[in-house]
Amino acid sequence: MNQDTICAIATAQGGAIGTIRVSGPEAITITDRIFTPVSGKPLIERHPYTLTFGHILSPEGEVIDEVLVSVFHAPHSYTGENSTEIMCHGSSYILQQVMQLLIKNGCRAAGPGEYTQRAFLNGKMDLSQAEAVADLIASTSAATHRMAMNQMRGGFSRELSALREKLLHLTSLMELELDFSDHEELEFADRSELKDIAGQIEKVISHLVDTFSVGNALKNGVPVAIVGETNAGKSTLLNALLNEERAIVSDIHGTTRDVIEDTMNLGGIVFRFIDTAGIRETTDTIESLGIERSFQKLEQASIVLWIIDATCAQVQYNQLADKILPRCEDKHLILVLNKTDLVPDVSSIRFADLPSNTSVMPLSAKQKNGLSELQHQLMNYASLPDISQNDVVVSNIRHYEALSRALESIHRVQDGLSTQLPGDLISQDLRECLYHLGEIVGGTIETDEVLGNIFKHFCIGK
Amino acid sequence: MNQDTICAIATAQGGAIGTIRVSGPEAITITDRIFTPVSGKPLIERHPYTLTFGHILSPEGEVIDEVLVSVFHAPHSYTGENSTEIMCHGSSYILQQVMQLLIKNGCRAAGPGEYTQRAFLNGKMDLSQAEAVADLIASTSAATHRMAMNQMRGGFSRELSALREKLLHLTSLMELELDFSDHEELEFADRSELKDIAGQIEKVISHLVDTFSVGNALKNGVPVAIVGETNAGKSTLLNALLNEERAIVSDIHGTTRDVIEDTMNLGGIVFRFIDTAGIRETTDTIESLGIERSFQKLEQASIVLWIIDATCAQVQYNQLADKILPRCEDKHLILVLNKTDLVPDVSSIRFADLPSNTSVMPLSAKQKNGLSELQHQLMNYASLPDISQNDVVVSNIRHYEALSRALESIHRVQDGLSTQLPGDLISQDLRECLYHLGEIVGGTIETDEVLGNIFKHFCIGK
Repeated sequence: MNQDTICAIATAQGGAIGTIRVSGPEAITITDRIFTPVSGKPLIERHPYTLTFGHILSPEGEVIDEVLVSVFHAPHSYTGENSTEIMCHGSSYILQQVMQLLIKNGCRAAGPGEYTQRAFLNGKMDLSQAEAVADLIASTSAATHRMAMNQMRGGFSRELSALREKLLHLTSLMELELDFSDHEELEFADRSELKDIAGQIEKVISHLVDTFSVGNALKNGVPVAIVGETNAGKSTLLNALLNEERAIVSDIHGTTRDVIEDTMNLGGIVFRFIDTAGIRETTDTIESLGIERSFQKLEQASIVLWIIDATCAQVQYNQLADKILPRCEDKHLILVLNKTDLVPDVSSIRFADLPSNTSVMPLSAKQKNGLSELQHQLMNYASLPDISQNDVVVSNIRHYEALSRALESIHRVQDGLSTQLPGDLISQDLRECLYHLGEIVGGTIETDEVLGNIFKHFCIGK
Repeated sequence: MNQDTICAIATAQGGAIGTIRVSGPEAITITDRIFTPVSGKPLIERHPYTLTFGHILSPEGEVIDEVLVSVFHAPHSYTGENSTEIMCHGSSYILQQVMQLLIKNGCRAAGPGEYTQRAFLNGKMDLSQAEAVADLIASTSAATHRMAMNQMRGGFSRELSALREKLLHLTSLMELELDFSDHEELEFADRSELKDIAGQIEKVISHLVDTFSVGNALKNGVPVAIVGETNAGKSTLLNALLNEERAIVSDIHGTTRDVIEDTMNLGGIVFRFIDTAGIRETTDTIESLGIERSFQKLEQASIVLWIIDATCAQVQYNQLADKILPRCEDKHLILVLNKTDLVPDVSSIRFADLPSNTSVMPLSAKQKNGLSELQHQLMNYASLPDISQNDVVVSNIRHYEALSRALESIHRVQDGLSTQLPGDLISQDLRECLYHLGEIVGGTIETDEVLGNIFKHFCIGK
């Protein structure tokens, strides 16, 4: 490995205590250079998993801080390397001074997630476990905590490991078939067993892919798309919903650190509103490509709020129905009939060809009438299952994508078995399936770019 | 002491690592109830100053986190009590869950500064050292760090201890005089020695009192009072100064946590602007009591910016001169002649009876002319001495007030010795002086109220 020694402040600014982590072959010797133990016994002579009290001194002999330093010896540390942790008073000035001293004495300031990346590279955890560390730190609820903790403790890895074993078994049976390809009578007997195993594998992968909708909703909020023309009252409705419930509006920073705007907590469920802003800008050219692109965002949503101005309901409905309805077939569609205060008789408004998965909610966002009914409908549609710490729930988009590709591969395997494709072609799909599952836990295949993308979203010091 | 066991999150929200501190007689046994060490060996059987890896489990057996726990035995801990520190992943959800488990198992959530208060009550540090802990955490510069570190390490306490010894010596000499009060011939010889010692004490206390202006300026910013009528352009000037230098404007949260508005960093020196808002509201009743009260704020300042509208300079000067000038005798006064862009010939403006400590700075805040000259003048006037870690500098207003009262007492002692006051009256002033010095380090005299006031400004977990 022969890596350099890194250091980082691992605590947030502003607390009573601040901790600096040092990791790498020189971690203990470099810390010894800036640390004067009260006992006189340097860290290098201390047992691992002990704490030592003393002073961090500047080269001029000035006391920077009174600290406690812990010592860990490779491989028995978080990173698997020699490590120290320096517990200082939580002053940003002090922490910066100690960092500067460490760097002057041979350390390098760590990048985001570099400790966890080293833990992965040193075999302390697989890639999906490493990713769960960031999720665990970001967890804000029992559900997100459970998902991350299960993943970090290897629940997902074990499920994948069992899958890989099944796949390897299937591959070896395929190869057996190839070896005996002269004996045609063997083939069909094998293939029915192969189909059975492939079916089992498909079922598990398919289930894992399905859990993503729950995992993603728990982690990032239930995706709700809002469509409708601007004058329909989208902003007024959102503001009314938020004010009414005194809900928390905030940017959700996921592990990807992408800012997602307009999230709202209703009855403990976080909703994430997906803006389909394109519509208002091109009302005049309603058939334009821009609108198409905007509607494609609907695909991310599990609930669609279609806001229609009650004063011109028929026109707005007819204008967009053939764009919106076909895209909502597997979603919950709520047709919000807004501005009912301006219409004498709402019940007279009828919509042609309204699908059965649609509920119509008449309300006045401005007058704040009908809002609680809409909120209840949102909560009904969003109902998420309780998950336990033993449930494997996929919440990481990278894992979801790898699983989706693995699912495609195993489907090709199943097709090949059904259509009696040559064994060597099926073997190739099996290898692809194994490859995609391997991407999740990491193996020998990941490039610096892949790792860089995964760990750059971590916080510094982790 | 027989106190309860307290717990608190000692790190700020948002880092990679979060630390929970537990302190009190039951600290180790309560932590053992929620912690399952991987080794199987409970914390109570572990050596002090060791770290143990394991899991925090909920009563239902769910893993809350994988943690490292450190163990300290009374009296060898920060508080002097049995203590543990639980190092978790930095998720606020996890930290709250661990806190709840600790509280369910017999801990109490600690109040602000309660760890340091216990350290004081258990004799681990005196009161001025305890107060320095909060200053150290709040320190943001080399100077504030040095002041706090010296005070925390007992530099100030040693100085006070030497003073108290001198005072006790003086008291014992006084008592000797009282004992031999029949022998009148003894009295005068003693008094000249007494005067000498009292003079030494006065000199030290007086010096300490004087350091407060530097200590306070370093800690809270150089106090600059801004006076002038509203139309003189105070706001425009402040905004111009700030924009020009892209200076940091922020609320300074001192250890007192009082919000001080309008601070500005010029060339590394923090200036704190003191608002004398009263003037603008009562321009019509210029002699009113409100104005008097407003001008009293000038007394806090070391620099006074008097802003005068150049278009009516004479009127504004004459209106306030007899209020402002007498109050600025021991300060730097800058007379800012604003709006020079509206006046054809600034040099023709003359002010009667301008004291020698005054500089007149013509400028146009609106046109941003003459600002850098004003900034340089502010920096010149503010020049603060370099301090080393061995200098005792008083920066705490409570210490300043106690020292001021001690100085008054020793002045009365000196007067008493000069006017040959009876020894028992002088002894009383000596005792008062001792009492006020004792207030600083704390002794047997502090009430819960005094301690409460000191520690309520600490952060939780310290």
